[in-house]
Amino acid sequence: MASTMASTMASTSSTSPSIQVFRDPSPLRQWRRQLLLSNKSLGFVPTMGALHEGHLSLMRQAAAENTDILVSIYVNPTQFGVSEDLSSYPRTWDSDVAKLQALNAELDAKSKSGGRVTAILAPTSHVMYPSLPPTSEIDGDGSFVTITPISRRLEGASRPVFFRGVATVCMKLFNIAGADRAYFGQKDVQQTVVIKRMVKDFHVDTEIRIGETVREVDGLAMSSRNVYLGERRRGVGLVLYRALKAAEEAYGSGKLGRGEILDAADEVTRKVLAEQHALAPEERALYEVDYISLADPESLDELEVVDPAKGAILSGAVKMVPLEASKDGEDCGLSDGKVPVRLIDNLIMKPRST
Amino acid sequence: MASTMASTMASTSSTSPSIQVFRDPSPLRQWRRQLLLSNKSLGFVPTMGALHEGHLSLMRQAAAENTDILVSIYVNPTQFGVSEDLSSYPRTWDSDVAKLQALNAELDAKSKSGGRVTAILAPTSHVMYPSLPPTSEIDGDGSFVTITPISRRLEGASRPVFFRGVATVCMKLFNIAGADRAYFGQKDVQQTVVIKRMVKDFHVDTEIRIGETVREVDGLAMSSRNVYLGERRRGVGLVLYRALKAAEEAYGSGKLGRGEILDAADEVTRKVLAEQHALAPEERALYEVDYISLADPESLDELEVVDPAKGAILSGAVKMVPLEASKDGEDCGLSDGKVPVRLIDNLIMKPRST
Repeated sequence: MASTMASTMASTSSTSPSIQVFRDPSPLRQWRRQLLLSNKSLGFVPTMGALHEGHLSLMRQAAAENTDILVSIYVNPTQFGVSEDLSSYPRTWDSDVAKLQALNAELDAKSKSGGRVTAILAPTSHVMYPSLPPTSEIDGDGSFVTITPISRRLEGASRPVFFRGVATVCMKLFNIAGADRAYFGQKDVQQTVVIKRMVKDFHVDTEIRIGETVREVDGLAMSSRNVYLGERRRGVGLVLYRALKAAEEAYGSGKLGRGEILDAADEVTRKVLAEQHALAPEERALYEVDYISLADPESLDELEVVDPAKGAILSGAVKMVPLEASKDGEDCGLSDGKVPVRLIDNLIMKPRST
Repeated sequence: MASTMASTMASTSSTSPSIQVFRDPSPLRQWRRQLLLSNKSLGFVPTMGALHEGHLSLMRQAAAENTDILVSIYVNPTQFGVSEDLSSYPRTWDSDVAKLQALNAELDAKSKSGGRVTAILAPTSHVMYPSLPPTSEIDGDGSFVTITPISRRLEGASRPVFFRGVATVCMKLFNIAGADRAYFGQKDVQQTVVIKRMVKDFHVDTEIRIGETVREVDGLAMSSRNVYLGERRRGVGLVLYRALKAAEEAYGSGKLGRGEILDAADEVTRKVLAEQHALAPEERALYEVDYISLADPESLDELEVVDPAKGAILSGAVKMVPLEASKDGEDCGLSDGKVPVRLIDNLIMKPRST
């Protein structure tokens, strides 16, 4: 990785300035202080790499609001549970850097003003976890930020270390970056709630900005994990978005009770699963609904009735199980359809006048 | 308190500039940014008020190393256990401010250059804990920084929420202050180890500076809690320092084994307690030794043998129990000798060549 980085640092193009790559906090801080003293502003987009349009759209937003953009690329071990997919999480450094350079070229072509991606932070785990080896055990030792009870809700119910890991690594990254603004996607809605709470409670001097979920044309929320789906599971995986849309329509038509809103979603997930079960193993893609939630936008407490003055967060998770059989030449995605892929999605039900 | 603060803000003296009092992060940040842009440096001394010579000596050190000093005065509820002395912790705003003004006058008289105390941060708990009421339960909900396993050692063994509370409030205060350097006293040695670990692990951009323990002429470590001792318990309370000195002498004379070092301390604490028991109730002051520890300077693990290349931390805690009886006109301290007072102290056994 080091040699790739060196060539990245040396690379320049006629349209974009080169992107600096930092592996350590200290030189990054000097660079950031110079920005401050030159009255420039810094937007920060933390990522685990495997960049897709969702990330790029956050960077476009950051470019509209800051002179400089720092992108971090770091696969954070403490947010993966013991049995989760840390080792199989996609690592795609070269294509990530190419995408950032292409984004800068796009921004140049659009306008001479506005921000550019001028730095990447790509630290090692030794830098991010200098004292103790990072643990994936919920009762493991280390230095952590915990935000409860919201970290135990929804995604946290099945992934008990997840938001501890996310909050911890974000506190570190925020301290290193010292950014004016940091950008997170609406797609990981619980993450946005946890991070906003952390910034508020710890008086982190960085404004949290949320970018809308970027979707494929058919509505599937973009995710780094989608490359593992393959065509068949990708098509069926759309069931989550469709279920949430059905529930949103129920809210939109005036319904406020938990049952009447969530029944609309459940009907979709049950119907699609029945259709799949009726197909042959090499034609179908099965899934398990982990949860469909109707929750308070700040506390993430489940709601029996939506307060229309506050609105709600409608969110869900569906696990696409491995394909049972494949056809000759079928594109089953990275790792040939053999790994389960957990999809999450959400819709914000905005407050409405009564 | 608000009116006192207003008068403090208005007060000016011929020798010292007035000290600004901030209750909220936002105006403090603007002030701090101006310092940065004027190339000034900020030293931060976090306190819970009840200022004594120990605090002032940290501020003198800060004045030698920074142009400006921020002192926070905030009694942090989350570091007090459910049954601990939060409500009885001394709150002495007026005399604290007077001490800071006197310190500035002293610094003026000594030299025209060097730093001054130019700001106080005195936030409410609503500002410090904006989301949930601060909890004193170890399994209570909230936003916390945990540093384990070192937070469970020594002081943490009998006070399970203490270092979670300290680390949490310090992370908040560091984020608000944005100081170049923060100052802590050696007296709270475990606190210095926990805070240094937190700053390292979370990449907090503030250098931690440790000031030596300030002692009364007889050796008693200064503490805000000493005002509760009264003359009699104060005299006997010196036993902790004497016990640690005896153990230090054992190390100094070449001993490295746990037993041979700690036996020297135990002999002192046992002998003094026996002497006290022999006295009448209105003459004596009894105590309980909580622990005397010989620990690794970074991990705080108890040591069987000291590695002379690393040295060790020798620390202890003694609880002065309430006086059983008092004599007419006796000064028994604040609250008349009726509250137990827990004393802590430590000595650093420096590495030595073998």
